Amino acid sequence: MKKYCVGVVGALGAVGTEMLKILEQRDFPIETIKPLDVKENEGKKICFKGQDVEVRSAEEGAFRDLDIALFSAGEVASRNLAPVAVSEGCIVIDNSNAFRMDPEKPLIIPEVNPEDIMWHKGIIANPNCSTIQMLVALKPLHDRFGIKRIVVSTYQAVSGSGLFGIAELEEQLRAYTEDRELEVKVYPHQIAFNAIPHIDSFTDNGYTKEEMKMVHETHKIFHNSDIAITATAVRIPVIRCHSESINIETEEPIDLQEAKEVLYRAQGIKVLDNVSTNIYPLAAELAGTNEVYVGRIRQDFSVANGLNMWVVADNLRKGAALNAVQIAETLIQLK
Amino acid sequence: MKKYCVGVVGALGAVGTEMLKILEQRDFPIETIKPLDVKENEGKKICFKGQDVEVRSAEEGAFRDLDIALFSAGEVASRNLAPVAVSEGCIVIDNSNAFRMDPEKPLIIPEVNPEDIMWHKGIIANPNCSTIQMLVALKPLHDRFGIKRIVVSTYQAVSGSGLFGIAELEEQLRAYTEDRELEVKVYPHQIAFNAIPHIDSFTDNGYTKEEMKMVHETHKIFHNSDIAITATAVRIPVIRCHSESINIETEEPIDLQEAKEVLYRAQGIKVLDNVSTNIYPLAAELAGTNEVYVGRIRQDFSVANGLNMWVVADNLRKGAALNAVQIAETLIQLK
Repeated sequence: MKKYCVGVVGALGAVGTEMLKILEQRDFPIETIKPLDVKENEGKKICFKGQDVEVRSAEEGAFRDLDIALFSAGEVASRNLAPVAVSEGCIVIDNSNAFRMDPEKPLIIPEVNPEDIMWHKGIIANPNCSTIQMLVALKPLHDRFGIKRIVVSTYQAVSGSGLFGIAELEEQLRAYTEDRELEVKVYPHQIAFNAIPHIDSFTDNGYTKEEMKMVHETHKIFHNSDIAITATAVRIPVIRCHSESINIETEEPIDLQEAKEVLYRAQGIKVLDNVSTNIYPLAAELAGTNEVYVGRIRQDFSVANGLNMWVVADNLRKGAALNAVQIAETLIQLK
Repeated sequence: MKKYCVGVVGALGAVGTEMLKILEQRDFPIETIKPLDVKENEGKKICFKGQDVEVRSAEEGAFRDLDIALFSAGEVASRNLAPVAVSEGCIVIDNSNAFRMDPEKPLIIPEVNPEDIMWHKGIIANPNCSTIQMLVALKPLHDRFGIKRIVVSTYQAVSGSGLFGIAELEEQLRAYTEDRELEVKVYPHQIAFNAIPHIDSFTDNGYTKEEMKMVHETHKIFHNSDIAITATAVRIPVIRCHSESINIETEEPIDLQEAKEVLYRAQGIKVLDNVSTNIYPLAAELAGTNEVYVGRIRQDFSVANGLNMWVVADNLRKGAALNAVQIAETLIQLK
């Protein structure tokens, strides 16, 4: 079996750390692992498969010995370095927003549109975390019933803002329990004991970029711009795992039992849905898991063909690092 | 000006405490105040307008000297004692779920359907917290554009479960910061760092009672059962103030500017909506306020006549205690 030289850009970040862990856990065929990060972190060590590996500076020349580079160091780093990596002969799987809507770059969820990998030209984009879990859950329903419209409200974890987001929530909670004033640095407002309907920056139409990503990325991944989507993206004081309240309207009538069976059989989904025993997906219980969890599946009585559901996934894993590694796995199967 | 003898049943609870505070703050014309609670709390003292007042047992005979009793001691207490209070000559304003859907009892939000107070027969019901703030926000839009359908997802505070809910969240956060195991008593699952799509118990159709209250109470208060409503009610780790992501579809086309003006002019609403300066309603900032706050008002591009908005209100005040006192104020104006 061929083995690959793999780089992780942003190796010390929340998603980068998870990427390294997942490459290890899934036994990705690795010849050499190369953790890359900002120059200031050069020389730091990470542990991979029991070995200390030195972090190198992510810069020109660093990609020459790599087959694949997983990028998760923010949009600017991706814009600057991903083309460099490609020119140095490396395939880039990019977790930032830099290339997602570029028509020349495929945007991939392996359970949803693996076929789009075929036309990559060096850079493959990883979708936004809230889009990934929504579309993994909706793909089998879309295939069977044809989705016309989606109304989604999110409940997003602070780890979506990286390690600083987690630190800010933890520090604010410590300040609260110690009766000190809460300091606000990462978010526009206090995140402890709050629900902030503002993720990423605002666009001219009154929606945030985060909300518009869910619209545009869905159209691109489903190859269908006719699906009507409206989103409200909200940050809540949860450390890990995003939750989503998803309402859909379909072309075909939905039989509730059939919808559940379709979800049970689908790839990448675990149905957790037994309200008589208080079973439904919960952010606090699903950190570290790989699947998209679906529960509270119920007919929407307010419209002819409607369904409500509650969808939870680990935003750092399926929403980011795991999806990127799965793209890499799909990629090497094609070779 | 006539003054009234007013009782508060559940005077030591989260809502009862707030009722007493609001009666004081709004200078309700009170002759005597009578705090009532369970027998075990008899003899405890509360402070009202600078005076210590002894808590009495809420039981038969306790309502003879009262004109109005505000009940917030749970459904069982209301079922047992409200009819007793009425038979003892008192008008009951009840914050529990006991009488809300009883066709013989009016269900009142003073900004929305004050006229229904006229036909009360001794008991007036206070709606559910999540219904109140939703309908205060939607009433002016309904009057102008005619609401056809509502899709709502809630972000509800732990104080909705009373003082025990607050204590549970605070204790779990303390345990987390001290690296102790989290204890779960009040909620079906850990509430710290979680989003629990389960408030009140489940009904046969897969919805919770909390979700169905939003459907049935809206129909009753708007005198219109044709409005299609679907709700997902979620508890999050916020102490006070419920937030709601509300999506509506209307009969008439919605002009965004006009919708905002309609909301600006409406009674009981404050519009907080300037995304260029990060202004939108926030649970952590609105505890202790009286209005229903509306922001993130934006056209829903996924449907012909649609609007999204983010609605926050203090669940203990407008969602409970304040609305009850406002009902009392409306009542005495009628006399």
